[in-house]
Amino acid sequence: MGDVAAGEGARAPNEAQTSRDSPPRSGRSAQTPFATLPRPAYRPARMFQLLKTDSTTKARLGRLTTAHGVVDTPAYMPVGTQATVKALDPRELREIGTQIILGNTYHLSIRPGMDIIRAAGGLHRFMAWDGPILTDSGGFQVFSLAKIRKIKAHGVEFRSHLDGSLLFLGPKEAMDIQRTLGSDIAMVFDECPPHDAPAKELHAAVHRTIRWAGECREQPRADGQRVFGIVQGGSNAAMREECAKAITALDFDGYAIGGVSVGEPEPEMMRAVEVTEPHLPADKARYAMGLGTPAQLVELVSRGVDMFDCVLPTRVARTGTAYTSKGAIVIKGGAFKADFSPIEAGCECFACRHFTRAYLRHLMNVGEILGGRMLSVHNSHMFLKLMANIRAAIADGSFAAFKEEFIRGYVPSRRILSQRAK
Amino acid sequence: MGDVAAGEGARAPNEAQTSRDSPPRSGRSAQTPFATLPRPAYRPARMFQLLKTDSTTKARLGRLTTAHGVVDTPAYMPVGTQATVKALDPRELREIGTQIILGNTYHLSIRPGMDIIRAAGGLHRFMAWDGPILTDSGGFQVFSLAKIRKIKAHGVEFRSHLDGSLLFLGPKEAMDIQRTLGSDIAMVFDECPPHDAPAKELHAAVHRTIRWAGECREQPRADGQRVFGIVQGGSNAAMREECAKAITALDFDGYAIGGVSVGEPEPEMMRAVEVTEPHLPADKARYAMGLGTPAQLVELVSRGVDMFDCVLPTRVARTGTAYTSKGAIVIKGGAFKADFSPIEAGCECFACRHFTRAYLRHLMNVGEILGGRMLSVHNSHMFLKLMANIRAAIADGSFAAFKEEFIRGYVPSRRILSQRAK
Repeated sequence: MGDVAAGEGARAPNEAQTSRDSPPRSGRSAQTPFATLPRPAYRPARMFQLLKTDSTTKARLGRLTTAHGVVDTPAYMPVGTQATVKALDPRELREIGTQIILGNTYHLSIRPGMDIIRAAGGLHRFMAWDGPILTDSGGFQVFSLAKIRKIKAHGVEFRSHLDGSLLFLGPKEAMDIQRTLGSDIAMVFDECPPHDAPAKELHAAVHRTIRWAGECREQPRADGQRVFGIVQGGSNAAMREECAKAITALDFDGYAIGGVSVGEPEPEMMRAVEVTEPHLPADKARYAMGLGTPAQLVELVSRGVDMFDCVLPTRVARTGTAYTSKGAIVIKGGAFKADFSPIEAGCECFACRHFTRAYLRHLMNVGEILGGRMLSVHNSHMFLKLMANIRAAIADGSFAAFKEEFIRGYVPSRRILSQRAK
Repeated sequence: MGDVAAGEGARAPNEAQTSRDSPPRSGRSAQTPFATLPRPAYRPARMFQLLKTDSTTKARLGRLTTAHGVVDTPAYMPVGTQATVKALDPRELREIGTQIILGNTYHLSIRPGMDIIRAAGGLHRFMAWDGPILTDSGGFQVFSLAKIRKIKAHGVEFRSHLDGSLLFLGPKEAMDIQRTLGSDIAMVFDECPPHDAPAKELHAAVHRTIRWAGECREQPRADGQRVFGIVQGGSNAAMREECAKAITALDFDGYAIGGVSVGEPEPEMMRAVEVTEPHLPADKARYAMGLGTPAQLVELVSRGVDMFDCVLPTRVARTGTAYTSKGAIVIKGGAFKADFSPIEAGCECFACRHFTRAYLRHLMNVGEILGGRMLSVHNSHMFLKLMANIRAAIADGSFAAFKEEFIRGYVPSRRILSQRAK
């Protein structure tokens, strides 16, 4: 892609700031996109503020300050793997309360490729999202998507899941890509072994993860970019502790718990978080990668986790399932064909303000795009609203009661999904 | 579907009217959807007002007043076959300037079925669109989609294209369904023969169309519902004249030219309109069904047509093609991979205000829903804006010049599409 010079065709970064959410008004340039918003100059000395710790659980209320804005924690990050949160536009993301989204190093490095991102002026401008972005390092994808791989001293040689071309990703490459993406938070390149990996393999993965974290620490960063370390170690408490101590010694801006949501049973996932958390400093944000269901999010907040990303809201939306505070419901099912109530009574999302279950059921039933779109709006809003409710409960000291009530009322998705199969 | 009683579960029609386009504001019920807007009481004696006829062409400026609002003509109607304009939500439809949409009797009668529409309180409420709706009669679909059919005295027996079940649609049934849908404009049930039908078959179709139009005229209607007649006759001038005279003698609220856009060459289509138009009364709206490309719309306006519907804007959007005032461009093509300009400079649609060709190309290239969504927004806006420009040109007496300039600058899609095949 040598035909694309850096900066070529990129829009000027200094156009006037405009409102994201309004239709065009007279006196305003119709050609000013999200993409041209100026990057804020504010650079706080400290990224994370711990505002309150719950008295009866480990739940924490906090605030992350990034180059593109503030994120209230506990926070859910909608996933924008390929430079778009599936089916949603940036206005919809704002309307449902999104404060930060996630982008994927592995996918974006393959398509559209860094030449295009560089020419666009970074990921924010490319996708017209001017809020905070966290990018993963590609480690998880290399170890889950790429079928043929060879682990080397300074990274992994693998074949693209798309066209089989030979690629290499390591600490240097992952940080270089994330610098080009210009994310607000970059993740270190780690090795994510399978949940049932033998102890020897797990041990080797932990040690490579620690060494690679050190290498990532030394790479140049984008202006204002923060970097989070990742703790691996499966459900082995000793290895989690060893990894957490080594990673936190490198003094990153925040810490992630990796190697969860990789197929392990839920108790093992909870245990991995429980044995890692005590070894993470209280004054840095903690991020549990790739999690989880609404009930899991509440459980993990009570275990001291501040940040989450999960594809479930948009993924299940496209197959016709909606999340409610009482559990997931299969909107596509015939039971809703004459149900003229909204997905969830009292919900303030665009879908619930405008459409009925019967209508959304019809759209999914006949394969219309608007169905998956609106369920994606509702489900993502449900996750974001849940986090807002969690924050309010921590703030007013009622989180333990909130958690108990939520978990008691919530029918886990598994039961719903097994009912679907009947 | 006898389990669904009429009106069961339908929302109360008398909730307060709310703004469609704004995010929720405090003091406003978050649960008030589009669907609950009250039906306006205003019923004009005359549906169509002819405001101006162009001095050098047959172009007309007019205004249709329906039970759900006013439509400025010449008008383009986005097509909502299955109770949704594909990929777009009602807010987006309003933002791009939509004044009226089209719904399909055939498709809606099969899915979701009239029991559901009746229980929802009509099509407007079911799909949360409170603007005018025109419904076709199903005649075109019966003769184009249903493979096995038997023409009888009072309609057509056919098998569903979906599950092969035996169905019957005639003047009585089509008007009954449209009454349940509650459309503002219903179309008569006609026979639409193939464009190359032999004279005898065409003759029989024209006579059945006339007889069925008379039967449709006598059916009960929804409150405030208007009915348009349809003129058939292929490209046979004598048959078009005979049909037009018989149909207009029945004194409908407006007249459609049917049997166009059924596979015939463009000159034949233009001729069908040219030989029909002189036999239609000047004080009623004329609607050319299922047309056309941007250049064809301009040509047909100059031949005295007031209303159009066409699936092209959303259909080509989903395959990655965008309409501009200079012709269609294949955004999905590699030529745009580093093009950071909007689809069309100066365009005020949401897609052009926020996204670049390079970004939209990437979205289409990786199969992301937002790509087809945004091209659907842009293409539908392009058709609607074209009609607005046409109306402005007729109003200020410059339509002939507008037409000449537009046609000269517009590269027909065929050339673009053949370039795509190279």
